[in-house]
Amino acid sequence: MTKETELKRAHKDFINIMPLQTGGILTDAAKQALLEFADGYSVCDFCQYSLYEITKPPIRDFIINALPKFLGCDIATITYGARDAKFMIMNSITEPGDSIIVDGNRHYSTIVAAERARLNVIEVPNSGPPDFKIDVEKYVPIIKNHKANAILLTYPDGNYGNLPDAKRLGEIAKENDIPFILNGAYSVGRLPVSMDELGADFIVGSGHKSMASAGPSGVLGMAKKWEDIILRKSALYPKKQVELLGCTLRGTAMATLMASFPHVKERVHHWDEQVQKAQWLSGELEKLGFQQMGEKPHRHDLMYFESLPLHDISKHTRERGYFLYRELKDRKIWGLQPGLTKHFKISTFAASRDELAFVIDSLKNIINKYG
Amino acid sequence: MTKETELKRAHKDFINIMPLQTGGILTDAAKQALLEFADGYSVCDFCQYSLYEITKPPIRDFIINALPKFLGCDIATITYGARDAKFMIMNSITEPGDSIIVDGNRHYSTIVAAERARLNVIEVPNSGPPDFKIDVEKYVPIIKNHKANAILLTYPDGNYGNLPDAKRLGEIAKENDIPFILNGAYSVGRLPVSMDELGADFIVGSGHKSMASAGPSGVLGMAKKWEDIILRKSALYPKKQVELLGCTLRGTAMATLMASFPHVKERVHHWDEQVQKAQWLSGELEKLGFQQMGEKPHRHDLMYFESLPLHDISKHTRERGYFLYRELKDRKIWGLQPGLTKHFKISTFAASRDELAFVIDSLKNIINKYG
Repeated sequence: MTKETELKRAHKDFINIMPLQTGGILTDAAKQALLEFADGYSVCDFCQYSLYEITKPPIRDFIINALPKFLGCDIATITYGARDAKFMIMNSITEPGDSIIVDGNRHYSTIVAAERARLNVIEVPNSGPPDFKIDVEKYVPIIKNHKANAILLTYPDGNYGNLPDAKRLGEIAKENDIPFILNGAYSVGRLPVSMDELGADFIVGSGHKSMASAGPSGVLGMAKKWEDIILRKSALYPKKQVELLGCTLRGTAMATLMASFPHVKERVHHWDEQVQKAQWLSGELEKLGFQQMGEKPHRHDLMYFESLPLHDISKHTRERGYFLYRELKDRKIWGLQPGLTKHFKISTFAASRDELAFVIDSLKNIINKYG
Repeated sequence: MTKETELKRAHKDFINIMPLQTGGILTDAAKQALLEFADGYSVCDFCQYSLYEITKPPIRDFIINALPKFLGCDIATITYGARDAKFMIMNSITEPGDSIIVDGNRHYSTIVAAERARLNVIEVPNSGPPDFKIDVEKYVPIIKNHKANAILLTYPDGNYGNLPDAKRLGEIAKENDIPFILNGAYSVGRLPVSMDELGADFIVGSGHKSMASAGPSGVLGMAKKWEDIILRKSALYPKKQVELLGCTLRGTAMATLMASFPHVKERVHHWDEQVQKAQWLSGELEKLGFQQMGEKPHRHDLMYFESLPLHDISKHTRERGYFLYRELKDRKIWGLQPGLTKHFKISTFAASRDELAFVIDSLKNIINKYG
């Protein structure tokens, strides 16, 4: 039986640098909405058989007006998450046995969604270490040599935080008349991104990853021409979209997504400050003997570091790799994978410069302490 | 732009008799868990690449031990909701073009899930008014005359609250060697229900409908022989289940499902009191000239009433059907569909006898006031 103490998080007030979490920390407005719509099905108080028509809370306006404008697309809907949006698209525009071309830096859930839709996956390899870049021109021969039904680009990827040339891939997609899915799980809600400007057919975002929302939640934008395919209605229930199983995101996740939206809309305009913060941290950590992998100068808060000085310490410490986790925990720094020292992923999105300075100093002190 | 005032619920402390909502009202423990795990991806603090292996919070124990025991099945998993569980099963055990036999009282989402899986649906009709009963013996000739790949029973249905003979259908399923899906969205978490005892292959439950959980959330139980099919792993990612898209329910919904579970486990043992409460209300409302449709004596808190005395009033009132909604709202009674008077659905699950006595008195007074 679950004890109440097991449902506590010890590190809630820590400095959070965990890549999965920094974009999903709730706003105060979202915390209030969470309690207000806590009970199951509470957003459905005034439902008239379609989530799209609920005006209290203003779900209709959010889906019909606010979201398409924010995503730079014609039509938008809500989903349980980016992965669910990817599956919805695949399940709607392909048949089992079809093929999809994806970048080599794709999230694992892209592969799993394709498996669920019974698709063959063809990968466009990255450039390998240390940059792991995706050259979108490499999609061209693959498109020409395979009968693929869609292409997908991860923008940025969750490992290195690389931002490939999505706009050029949009041109390539149009030249080759192939549907283009942009996975913006780590961009939508963090930086300005417009589906139309990048020339994509679909844009996918994550509420819990990048839109200050409780999970599970996501968004999906599309060009008008896809509306009748992705959002096709039930033959028997003309108000119910088949891919949404009638209604999709109900409850707290929906409420927090809406409540945080004004803040999220505003914060993307401060993206240049986020990039400067990331680049500054990267430079400081390289002074400690770490190597930032991925694009340099870096253009995203997600970063991957090889950290051999920490790895060397782990070889001579009783706790092996866990010394680092414990030392950081003692300093109220949260987010590095326990046990790992040879390399780590980090996100600078939620922490202030002062907090990041403390992270840098802490790493320096830890190296000195054990060195 | 969403205004903060638009994210408020005016009737939070009302007597709640709304069928969608009475089983999903959070426990105090769940409200605390909600705040604790508010931030997106916060249940993933200690994730090692699989939701199934998270021990802090104790998701692993919940999925592996607590849930199968509660559902009376071998293997369980969590989902976004009952509809998503139904689609997972259909997408795993059928091929596009296959057929499924369902009861005529099935929820609309059963149809939509089948459409998403591209299945033909064959319905076993109910007995019509006033009982709308499902006679499970009627599955037999349909099974014999059609090459169907699964049967589904709604237990109980969401309209009339009828509880068909699931156990007999379990025997029929075994005799005909056809997989049997039990949709327990309105039973799992309300009354004692055991998949094994009823002889089903699958049992589906809803967190936000019947397990005192925030939405979207659900559970899925199955016999051991289905594990490798429903929970098949990705070829590339051996820790990731394809039908769960790697991980399914993260965040607040997962946290509330676990936090409410001790209470939910306990409350099903008081089901006889719930049934008595429902039967008593049914009798009292029939004294007002209403007619309870569906099984009598009734065995579930969900009920459907034809209420001609209220409908007669609506014909002669300026507000038409909305007078009833307003009168009940003035009395802090929540849950009848605004505008409807000819018939209504009601659930007695969340309200006490005293509260229901007040509901009965209120309806009596409203009839007298306008009569």
